[in-house]
Amino acid sequence: MRVFNKNMKIFGDTYMLWGLLGFGTSLAAIAVALFLAYYVNKYEEGTERMREIARAIQEGARAFLKVQNFYLMIFAVVMALVLAVFLGINVAIAYIVGALFSMIAGVIGMEVAVRANVRSTYSAFREGIRRAFLVAYLGGTVMGLMVVGTALAGITLFYAIFNDFQVLLGFSLGASSVALFTKAGGGIYTKTADIAADLVGKVELNLPEDDPRNPAVIADNVGDNVGDVAGMASDLYDSYVASIIAAMVIGFEMFANFGAPELYIYLPIIIAAGGIVATLIGLTWVKIHAHEDPGASLNRITLIAIIAYILILYVLVWWFNANWAVFYATVAGLIAGGIMGLTTDYYTSIDKPPVQKIAEASTTGTAINILLGFSYGTLSIVPGIIGVAVAMLIAWYISIHFGLYPIYGIAIAAIGMLGIVGTIVSADAYGPIADNAKGIAEQSRLGEEVIRILDRLDAAGNTTKAITKGFAIGAAALTVIALFAAYAEIVDIQLLVDAGSAVLVDPTKVLNLVDPNVVSGLLIGAMMPPVIAAMLILAVGRNTEVMIEDIRKQVRERPGILKGTEKPDYARCVSIAEKGALKELMLPGLIATIAPVVTGILLGVRALAAFLAGSIATGFIFALFMANSGGAWDNAKKYIEDGHFGGKGSDAHKAAVVGDTVGDPFKDTAGPTLNTMITVMSLMASTFAPLIALLALFP
Amino acid sequence: MRVFNKNMKIFGDTYMLWGLLGFGTSLAAIAVALFLAYYVNKYEEGTERMREIARAIQEGARAFLKVQNFYLMIFAVVMALVLAVFLGINVAIAYIVGALFSMIAGVIGMEVAVRANVRSTYSAFREGIRRAFLVAYLGGTVMGLMVVGTALAGITLFYAIFNDFQVLLGFSLGASSVALFTKAGGGIYTKTADIAADLVGKVELNLPEDDPRNPAVIADNVGDNVGDVAGMASDLYDSYVASIIAAMVIGFEMFANFGAPELYIYLPIIIAAGGIVATLIGLTWVKIHAHEDPGASLNRITLIAIIAYILILYVLVWWFNANWAVFYATVAGLIAGGIMGLTTDYYTSIDKPPVQKIAEASTTGTAINILLGFSYGTLSIVPGIIGVAVAMLIAWYISIHFGLYPIYGIAIAAIGMLGIVGTIVSADAYGPIADNAKGIAEQSRLGEEVIRILDRLDAAGNTTKAITKGFAIGAAALTVIALFAAYAEIVDIQLLVDAGSAVLVDPTKVLNLVDPNVVSGLLIGAMMPPVIAAMLILAVGRNTEVMIEDIRKQVRERPGILKGTEKPDYARCVSIAEKGALKELMLPGLIATIAPVVTGILLGVRALAAFLAGSIATGFIFALFMANSGGAWDNAKKYIEDGHFGGKGSDAHKAAVVGDTVGDPFKDTAGPTLNTMITVMSLMASTFAPLIALLALFP
Repeated sequence: MRVFNKNMKIFGDTYMLWGLLGFGTSLAAIAVALFLAYYVNKYEEGTERMREIARAIQEGARAFLKVQNFYLMIFAVVMALVLAVFLGINVAIAYIVGALFSMIAGVIGMEVAVRANVRSTYSAFREGIRRAFLVAYLGGTVMGLMVVGTALAGITLFYAIFNDFQVLLGFSLGASSVALFTKAGGGIYTKTADIAADLVGKVELNLPEDDPRNPAVIADNVGDNVGDVAGMASDLYDSYVASIIAAMVIGFEMFANFGAPELYIYLPIIIAAGGIVATLIGLTWVKIHAHEDPGASLNRITLIAIIAYILILYVLVWWFNANWAVFYATVAGLIAGGIMGLTTDYYTSIDKPPVQKIAEASTTGTAINILLGFSYGTLSIVPGIIGVAVAMLIAWYISIHFGLYPIYGIAIAAIGMLGIVGTIVSADAYGPIADNAKGIAEQSRLGEEVIRILDRLDAAGNTTKAITKGFAIGAAALTVIALFAAYAEIVDIQLLVDAGSAVLVDPTKVLNLVDPNVVSGLLIGAMMPPVIAAMLILAVGRNTEVMIEDIRKQVRERPGILKGTEKPDYARCVSIAEKGALKELMLPGLIATIAPVVTGILLGVRALAAFLAGSIATGFIFALFMANSGGAWDNAKKYIEDGHFGGKGSDAHKAAVVGDTVGDPFKDTAGPTLNTMITVMSLMASTFAPLIALLALFP
Repeated sequence: MRVFNKNMKIFGDTYMLWGLLGFGTSLAAIAVALFLAYYVNKYEEGTERMREIARAIQEGARAFLKVQNFYLMIFAVVMALVLAVFLGINVAIAYIVGALFSMIAGVIGMEVAVRANVRSTYSAFREGIRRAFLVAYLGGTVMGLMVVGTALAGITLFYAIFNDFQVLLGFSLGASSVALFTKAGGGIYTKTADIAADLVGKVELNLPEDDPRNPAVIADNVGDNVGDVAGMASDLYDSYVASIIAAMVIGFEMFANFGAPELYIYLPIIIAAGGIVATLIGLTWVKIHAHEDPGASLNRITLIAIIAYILILYVLVWWFNANWAVFYATVAGLIAGGIMGLTTDYYTSIDKPPVQKIAEASTTGTAINILLGFSYGTLSIVPGIIGVAVAMLIAWYISIHFGLYPIYGIAIAAIGMLGIVGTIVSADAYGPIADNAKGIAEQSRLGEEVIRILDRLDAAGNTTKAITKGFAIGAAALTVIALFAAYAEIVDIQLLVDAGSAVLVDPTKVLNLVDPNVVSGLLIGAMMPPVIAAMLILAVGRNTEVMIEDIRKQVRERPGILKGTEKPDYARCVSIAEKGALKELMLPGLIATIAPVVTGILLGVRALAAFLAGSIATGFIFALFMANSGGAWDNAKKYIEDGHFGGKGSDAHKAAVVGDTVGDPFKDTAGPTLNTMITVMSLMASTFAPLIALLALFP
């Protein structure tokens, strides 16, 4: 077992300045975020009707986050006590702060998002698409900058104060625990409301989307925010933190055992800071040119951030005289991320063959729609997996070529993918803001023109969301591979890179795949992601049934609701979604948290490493397939609604609606939770490694 | 690289006799099978109408198998040429004969099945359930005994003649290649016909199941035979052969390198012969007691075969003074198989909560039915995976405890699960015979009483099918784990079992999971099963669309068909199913065949080992989930048809029909193909190991 907290200097003389600069950059990001929040909030909210709807969404979202964060804090305190007993008080403190920071980023980001939506609607009404886009995008940017700012601030602060990697891992675990529960809870909430609103509202009662007569409409809008904005922010927050800390752990290993310069411990912080600067540079390009599609603008911002990031990286590596493998590995990561984004786009875009074939198949019946959506989503994993494998191989062999410790190269490639996470989160949070803005416009009857504008903003958000989701899943995959390597370092598993000549090894120190414990660990780890996904989907199913019953009851008992003369009890639907989500997220969350520790104790530390490898493989596969199947079903429905194959109301449309509903918990509940879940499992393994090694039944 | 064919005696003096006894047992099995075929064939075929229907099914099935086997022979010859060039003529001959034997077992078994079905119908009409059951079960037994007989005969013969394990691997690969294409082709055929017949016949035209006015009805009945009987026989044939040969390869390793007695090379043959005897003993119990459910009778036969098998094993181990770990490992395998069978039963049985909850959810709409079926199927993987992991661990540590080479213990556990494969195949082939018998009764209007009897036989077949399917998947999983180990032995990967003290190893000889090539291999291998599954489902989707168009056209152009005054063109539907299946099976089959070789050459022999491990993990997961989701959907529909939640014709029923249709290619096309696919990939790796090692870009 490595001991991290011995003989370390607090921010070694040479790099003190750079550590401080990293901290400074993170504060700058937070400052810009707060300014943008203030700026967006100054826009007008519009008519009384609009304000009323916006308030209902805000209240629902706040109420859910409040209750969820309350339970999360209880969980975090219990977990912190466990950590304090077994691993010391410092780790416990870091855990709590990591959890708190993640929650704060989510709360502030969501608070701005639920204010930006109505302001974007009103801007569309008053000034047209360009202002509406600006408000929606800057609202999303608050979230993006808060995520990277608080993350980097936390890492630099904790490292400066405690100077102990176990503490940093605790911080990362805190962030990931919150992300797991936020993702699972938000995912269950949002899809319960969405499916119930659709199944009863659209199918049984024939109401249009976002119709105010639908009792679940507010719950649905709230869900978009708690699931997509807050949940997704926690998700990328935790990948971001984990990727930086994994690289630092490996950098320390190089420093302590192989005599590498101390620089490599701090380089991840410096590179991350460079990414924040790149995000800020991209931000200066936020505007729509005349006659331009908002999607093109989103793509331009992202492209400029990527180019700026590569240039900054080049300068940083040159300035610090670091190993050039660092630069190439980062670029390899970025390219892999790009490939995954584009693949996601191909398999889920409304203009491409897969979606159109699914739409066409809907004319043959619901079953064929389901089968095709499932199959195309599954096929879509190929480029992503090969992309990540190639990025990993390039990072490894480039590192060996340039004489860098190869595992460090892989960790750096993960940071490469996550470097511009500020830009990604901004674009991702923009999506639900635009979606909500459209909903508010429909509910407050602002006329066709406004809805048409907001529809364009919403559609641009959907494509971006698909691309950034691919990027996020790829980044999470590389991050957990880096975490897997970090765990291997921590439990002292030998690398055996020096091929060719025989070396003396202790068999208990080799992660040998011809070992029954290792194979069992692999199988059990591989089993975890699909099982947790299934549990989450069942949770959505159960919760939806309850809400559907309630909607039917409301409509039946109070006929005025459908006539529009009586206001439905929105709050009851909000409360059903909320209570169900909080109840249902516990079991899968706990299983994911405890399984690595139990596996490690029962089968040994090497079996646990294989458990992580297995969970990465299937976690990656299921996350990709579920996200892309869901996206494809969604757009196949939209393609039919655009007038193809009989258009709205046709049998093909009905089939496509079922496909879309099946895809909902795939893409918005189970799929996104899996990323976070494998991160949490990897961090649990690393953080509890000393305890597991002590109690393990096998060597 | 190990060289197998040096310094070996042809059936060493001591074991000559036992080798011959193994061969004799296999001939006995074939003799009994031929006698039963003759016996079943002597029953009467019934009325002219019945004969006509039976003939149509027979002709369709024969035509399909004829064309399929023709293409398969072309493929086999090309493959044999490749093998002859790279690995020698003997391997090529063994490959061709393995392929031929597998085809012959399938053809004879299917020929008897398509004769037994109509005879079972007529027996039900003339003499009632007991005779009908006997005819159906004995018809299935022909298949069961042919499978084990030809398999063991082939293995003993080839080993006696060539005395070379590379040749034996070639034999096994031949059997597996045929199984892969038969499974994929038959699976596409049967589900194309089934879904098309259902979607147009039942949903659009409101015809009952198996109605003679449905143009796809014969194609549907043919499909049951080519998919379920011939396909499943090839599937278990190939697992059976592979498990015996994997154990022999490892036994030879023990003999050649660790000085173990030669006995362990022959023991797999002897144990398999013991299993055949157990199957024959079980066969003597074939009858239904008064007022007994046919399912109880099927279970009794299986139970008696298992008990007989355990006793025979005990005696064999004692008689040969073999290591007792062999006995315990086999029993561990049997118990794991039992657990998997019972789990399958729990998740797919009509009397258990999962199926009933899916049925209940159908009242909420189609989407919830789909989501629940998907989720319960996915949850059902837990006991199976833990069962296989525990069986593997027990086999390993028991072997170490008794001083047996532990990998041999795992290989023997796989034979344990497959020992009574004769009984399993018999019960499994019984299913489609009973199903077809019912179909023939309905089409020839033999009255309610006969249909009721055959319904009972059919229902018993469904439960047995679910259990034996679980058993088969578990056995395939352990077999491929054994094949994985055999591959590791062949490419000389070090075991590192002597934990505790440091040993000198060559890093290129350790299957080290902290190696980018190994991790890449793992990810790519894990990707294969879901991708092939998706390709097969897409194939079914495409093919179904073509057939649906044709059925609609027939009914539209010739109104007499629906009135019952005009005979539909059954042959056109048969031909669509056939051509589509043959066209579509090629690409996935080729990818599965070539991928291991390409991976091995591009990433090295160790990456290929990890590729196999990854494919085992996801292959196992997807095979289980797809089989069980499909089974659960099927029975949820039947549960509603039994009068629950509104019964036939209700909205819940319509939703459940969609679920059943989605499940069809899951459980009968993609799921079953995955078993065979991972076996083929493992065998390709082992057989081509010398070539791959020569060309590999990495050490």
